[in-house]
Amino acid sequence: MSAFSLKGYLEERRIVVENALEGHLKALTPSVDARVAQAMAYSLMAGGKRLRPILCMAACEAVGGAPETAIKASCALEMIHTYSLVHDDLPAMDDDDFRRGRPTCHKAFDEATAVLAGDALLTSAFHLLALDRGPRAEIALDVIRIIADASGAFGMIEGQMRDIEAEGRDLDLDSLRELHGLKTGALIRASVESGAVLGGAANGEREALTHYAEKIGLAFQVTDDILNVEGDPDLMGKGVGTDAEHNKATYPSLMGLSESKIYARELVEDAVSALDILDAKANPLKALALYVVQRQR
Amino acid sequence: MSAFSLKGYLEERRIVVENALEGHLKALTPSVDARVAQAMAYSLMAGGKRLRPILCMAACEAVGGAPETAIKASCALEMIHTYSLVHDDLPAMDDDDFRRGRPTCHKAFDEATAVLAGDALLTSAFHLLALDRGPRAEIALDVIRIIADASGAFGMIEGQMRDIEAEGRDLDLDSLRELHGLKTGALIRASVESGAVLGGAANGEREALTHYAEKIGLAFQVTDDILNVEGDPDLMGKGVGTDAEHNKATYPSLMGLSESKIYARELVEDAVSALDILDAKANPLKALALYVVQRQR
Repeated sequence: MSAFSLKGYLEERRIVVENALEGHLKALTPSVDARVAQAMAYSLMAGGKRLRPILCMAACEAVGGAPETAIKASCALEMIHTYSLVHDDLPAMDDDDFRRGRPTCHKAFDEATAVLAGDALLTSAFHLLALDRGPRAEIALDVIRIIADASGAFGMIEGQMRDIEAEGRDLDLDSLRELHGLKTGALIRASVESGAVLGGAANGEREALTHYAEKIGLAFQVTDDILNVEGDPDLMGKGVGTDAEHNKATYPSLMGLSESKIYARELVEDAVSALDILDAKANPLKALALYVVQRQR
Repeated sequence: MSAFSLKGYLEERRIVVENALEGHLKALTPSVDARVAQAMAYSLMAGGKRLRPILCMAACEAVGGAPETAIKASCALEMIHTYSLVHDDLPAMDDDDFRRGRPTCHKAFDEATAVLAGDALLTSAFHLLALDRGPRAEIALDVIRIIADASGAFGMIEGQMRDIEAEGRDLDLDSLRELHGLKTGALIRASVESGAVLGGAANGEREALTHYAEKIGLAFQVTDDILNVEGDPDLMGKGVGTDAEHNKATYPSLMGLSESKIYARELVEDAVSALDILDAKANPLKALALYVVQRQR
């Protein structure tokens, strides 16, 4: 992996994703004057790491597929991730005023528009996933099932519900892990799994990638919690120390800070060794696993 | 059509739809103890005419398909219709306390749960649409595109946005028609069109059915406005006279009440004659067109 620059790779892929997002958004929304379309673009094009799309394309590549094969699914995953942020930020939910250093969607527009923009992003995601045709139709349906399952009432939505219900209650480590497995882990897993399916993964490969995804999904959340303790608010575009203020159960609060760091590192090692059955085409995925715990935002 | 009982047909189909909805809901949501699943069931199983699913199955039948072929799409359409009602009722949107004679979802549960239940119904709808396999995969993708298009930022969501923006403003008849074409017409059209596609419609048939659907979608809204003037609140499970109270632009307010009734009747006649190219299997659709304007709720 010596010749591989993760920074260059992330930047290159981020640009590919953002260009594709912009193109699909234009095709899937009415004139830019329409208020809903403006709100969708405001939230979707607000930056962000584009981790899910990049994972999806990297998983596709890791099993020998061309990354472009996974670009529609990648964009759909980012649309779904963004819709979930827009709805989670609503006053009735987490009531957040800022996201990525800018006013949240309901602050920049209004609550009704934010609800509708979220709904429209979710709907557009499935529309985009259905744009495949011909011999690949069955694969496209597979991917829709994987993504709908991960983002639905068995996955992300149930995670957000549990997160709301957990407020002010004590959570043990198992419940915390389960909550995050649903709230963020499920969509990260679906990103990798759908990329694998689109790339034509053999059975053993799909399982290895799914194992990888589960571990980095967890590592991602542990790292988020660590960053909330000791991250740089300027780099992150959001406040630090907010979990402790709200008495939120986190990995650092339940395991201690340095134990959490060790745990995140172990999860990444586990994820990376799951990829041993794959060849050098999986190197970007290995580097991405390290990035998940080394990132500063 | 002498031997055909619309009442019996509607009742029989309603039961088929409700049984299927119940089954799919169970499969697509976690244990019934989960709060999101409860809120989804509360709103989805609250009665209602099941017009969209019944139209979808009838369109499938009209072109020679078996109605069961359209049952998944029918359920998905009803899930999408229900999600739109749950979100439209939210305080930030239309702020309605009652729906079908019962507290709205956010009143029976809370706002956060209602947002999530709506999101989950929308996600489940696409999950359900993706459950087809094998040789019919391409048709399933077609149906997803039709339904996503109708319910997205070019369709239902844009209609709701315009409805909110229209509050307190004067609308002319053309703008009103366009608004309703998006807000309710698009999904009614998609119900008929997806049924037609699933039933294997020939090109001319699909166009005739689409024309039919556009006319009855409009007739449906004109009738809704008429019922808001002179309907029976007990039969409807919601208040009457509320449009006039809110100075809302409606067909009766813009055309007059008796002109509106004539207009609705003309639309239905137009819809029914579009079906002349089909045989007796289209009789239920013809009867449904009459029902749309003769209904009392």
